[in-house]
Amino acid sequence: MDINSDLGESYGVWRMGDDAALLDVVTSANVACGFHAGDPAGILHTLRAAAERGVAVGAHVAYPDLVGFGRRNMDPSSAELVADVIYQIGALQGLAQAAGTRVRYVKPHGALYNTIAHDARQGDDVISALLALDPQLTLLALAGSPLIERARARGLRVVAEAFADRAYNDDGTLVSRRLPGAVLHDADAVAERMLQLVRTGEVTSITGTRVRLQADSICVHGDSPGAVDMARRVRARLQDAGVALRPFVDTLQG
Amino acid sequence: MDINSDLGESYGVWRMGDDAALLDVVTSANVACGFHAGDPAGILHTLRAAAERGVAVGAHVAYPDLVGFGRRNMDPSSAELVADVIYQIGALQGLAQAAGTRVRYVKPHGALYNTIAHDARQGDDVISALLALDPQLTLLALAGSPLIERARARGLRVVAEAFADRAYNDDGTLVSRRLPGAVLHDADAVAERMLQLVRTGEVTSITGTRVRLQADSICVHGDSPGAVDMARRVRARLQDAGVALRPFVDTLQG
Amino acid sequence: MDINSDLGESYGVWRMGDDAALLDVVTSANVACGFHAGDPAGILHTLRAAAERGVAVGAHVAYPDLVGFGRRNMDPSSAELVADVIYQIGALQGLAQAAGTRVRYVKPHGALYNTIAHDARQGDDVISALLALDPQLTLLALAGSPLIERARARGLRVVAEAFADRAYNDDGTLVSRRLPGAVLHDADAVAERMLQLVRTGEVTSITGTRVRLQADSICVHGDSPGAVDMARRVRARLQDAGVALRPFVDTLQG
Amino acid sequence: MDINSDLGESYGVWRMGDDAALLDVVTSANVACGFHAGDPAGILHTLRAAAERGVAVGAHVAYPDLVGFGRRNMDPSSAELVADVIYQIGALQGLAQAAGTRVRYVKPHGALYNTIAHDARQGDDVISALLALDPQLTLLALAGSPLIERARARGLRVVAEAFADRAYNDDGTLVSRRLPGAVLHDADAVAERMLQLVRTGEVTSITGTRVRLQADSICVHGDSPGAVDMARRVRARLQDAGVALRPFVDTLQG
Repeated sequence: MDINSDLGESYGVWRMGDDAALLDVVTSANVACGFHAGDPAGILHTLRAAAERGVAVGAHVAYPDLVGFGRRNMDPSSAELVADVIYQIGALQGLAQAAGTRVRYVKPHGALYNTIAHDARQGDDVISALLALDPQLTLLALAGSPLIERARARGLRVVAEAFADRAYNDDGTLVSRRLPGAVLHDADAVAERMLQLVRTGEVTSITGTRVRLQADSICVHGDSPGAVDMARRVRARLQDAGVALRPFVDTLQG
Repeated sequence: MDINSDLGESYGVWRMGDDAALLDVVTSANVACGFHAGDPAGILHTLRAAAERGVAVGAHVAYPDLVGFGRRNMDPSSAELVADVIYQIGALQGLAQAAGTRVRYVKPHGALYNTIAHDARQGDDVISALLALDPQLTLLALAGSPLIERARARGLRVVAEAFADRAYNDDGTLVSRRLPGAVLHDADAVAERMLQLVRTGEVTSITGTRVRLQADSICVHGDSPGAVDMARRVRARLQDAGVALRPFVDTLQG
Repeated sequence: MDINSDLGESYGVWRMGDDAALLDVVTSANVACGFHAGDPAGILHTLRAAAERGVAVGAHVAYPDLVGFGRRNMDPSSAELVADVIYQIGALQGLAQAAGTRVRYVKPHGALYNTIAHDARQGDDVISALLALDPQLTLLALAGSPLIERARARGLRVVAEAFADRAYNDDGTLVSRRLPGAVLHDADAVAERMLQLVRTGEVTSITGTRVRLQADSICVHGDSPGAVDMARRVRARLQDAGVALRPFVDTLQG
Repeated sequence: MDINSDLGESYGVWRMGDDAALLDVVTSANVACGFHAGDPAGILHTLRAAAERGVAVGAHVAYPDLVGFGRRNMDPSSAELVADVIYQIGALQGLAQAAGTRVRYVKPHGALYNTIAHDARQGDDVISALLALDPQLTLLALAGSPLIERARARGLRVVAEAFADRAYNDDGTLVSRRLPGAVLHDADAVAERMLQLVRTGEVTSITGTRVRLQADSICVHGDSPGAVDMARRVRARLQDAGVALRPFVDTLQG
């Protein structure tokens, strides 16, 4: 199993998250590319740290919206979105090269992530961007989303991810953040739940039903001390149970 | 001989230059990377046109100053400048890959170009950026500038360029734009002057002296109809005289 | 009657429109505020020219999207949108004060203009921004749009505008730009049509029906030589017919 | 005596400083205007909190350099710098108006602050900006800097400030941050030192000499828990000693 998290999301003097701590937890790092967060010097620093620890690097591409942290919907044209995604991956590839590593997958961020999970036009644009730049790139996508099949149909490798701290509906979709119970806070319960997922391919939904969830990566967060602690517990629980942790891109190519 | 010019300097709805016209004149295109000009979709469009015509592509890296068009001095730290340069080249490499071409050289833009011609610290940062990203990249630099030796001493390939429409001092430096006569306006005279340079390795200085100028590329402009016309005449004059025109990067690697 | 147009939409070195020419045509200038276009020095230059000619100044507020020229939909929160609008008007007020004039109305730009014509939440945010900053400001809005009544209900002064070069449907809405015939190109016909509007309060719709259109300002464009020519003819036709042209804000306060 | 500090320096999701805590310490708040820090919604929030507490508001204007936090030198033209400063003050005035307060002074930030302390051209541009916008604005400047006399000579009101946690040379200039001992860390000693300044108009220099320092405001920081604690001690020490604390702008106008 793979554990991924968002890194490199500081910007200039402004800090976000504890990249050093998280890099000891994750096997894959979604690194910001400058459009929603991340300045080049800060990104390079994070990439060097990821390279030292053997953590796989993915491009965390986003809408061009720094002040909104890429969390606001936008409607770029296809020409804009395709080029924006390529630009960001390329920039990260350059910095990764300088850091002694390389970009092996792409995980869209925030509003772009949520939009392409279901919006076919923008999803196709992101797929086109990856295929145009490097068909060996893997797309990391929301488990159960229509995007996965669209991407596979075009020959792109896709890996699905589960969210450690999010509740699921009976149909395998995420419970909306606007509803009570959408976000889980008990670190031990979250860790146990992820072990259940690894062992059985199922999670217990918000209604108590067991739901199948096809996922080869688990997303954890690091933007608060509590989040880092939860991430550590997820890793520890999986390791204690003998689950092998390694970047999903290595599994794919192994 | 090679002819280079700055391209891809539109931004969103704002147009600059006549890229289509210039791509029929130049053998090397310095393409904006988004920091002083150039949005990803526009850059990609320019790169595709360059690829179609077999024009070599260079990264026109700059300070992060869109509103100032990269013409204002800044004092980034070394960590910032190195990473900014890598980020920009990487972004352009990504777009170039998608356009079926690749970035083969780097020409810093505007204030950065002028600063590193003599500022050792910032010059070393730019050199470090290229070496860290891809030691096969060539740096295009001001003929006669100390930067050239500094870069060569560190193992970086460097090519010097002459400016078609600029007057030179007796010591081979450019006449400051603030002085009368700094910019030449007679297209035929400029074209003849560049032919003289190719044939003799010399230009006539502002005082009438013949000055040696080691240059393997000629920089022309395209930001006005008059500039495009002058660029065309330089090309036509060289071609008529039997001068072979091809990208300097091909010569280097030939 | 009032004639308005968008001005100050250059950005740094990039030019847009012919502000000098348009300022001889319009009675009200919608001046960019930096979010979709306009750098402070350029805006100040335009404001000084408007002040010299006695042209009324309005704030052309927009989403924060320079690369997309404010033409792409975004979904800012209410806190963001209210503050963004106030920030832009305030910035323009400061520059207007330095130019010897002042901001008397607000016309949202591009995607924001279109969205608030019908989106109640974002429309209310814009109304709230104006009321919080200066209840004496007038909102310039799309003739026939629901926004007009919402704004009046909250005590804000609103003036409706007609578009000189756009076709109207039978219900007084604009024909979508995606449909044939949406944009009119015959300058004389457009001028005659605007005279008809002034005299009768009606325009001929795309189906040939006469449609009532309550409008106290006519919007013309200046982003091409043809557009400036059309704007001049609209003004000339109205003047020749004896229509008094003056800023709508003077009429309101007269 | 007045105590001032920099506030509103968060940006979007990124937090900086503890504005709520500092607003209980200071009598004047230098509020970011969006060029080095501060998004409109965050700025408005800070202004409302300042208005509630009766803290005077100043515009913390800066170079347009978000990623560098306004700490990097730039060389804008006079037209650019004048307009940039007016734009920022105007934007803050708009938000202040909406928050029920107003901008009463201007304190340039970071590299701009340091540059204009001695650079006559840029200093004159900032002075021109304030005079063009509102001659009633007060400039808050480095104690002992030539800027003070230049501004007064042009009729602008100027107040000098001392830095609570910085060592001074025998000539009243700040010890460079690059030298050991430049920044003071003992909160009690700093507080005592500021009381000495208030009582005697003198500080003890880094060599042990007593140096005259004409200052009507004391600058404290809030960008770390230790800094907030030091700021509190400075305020408490002055209050305990019976020093009246109030905004310098009230004193000027009293």
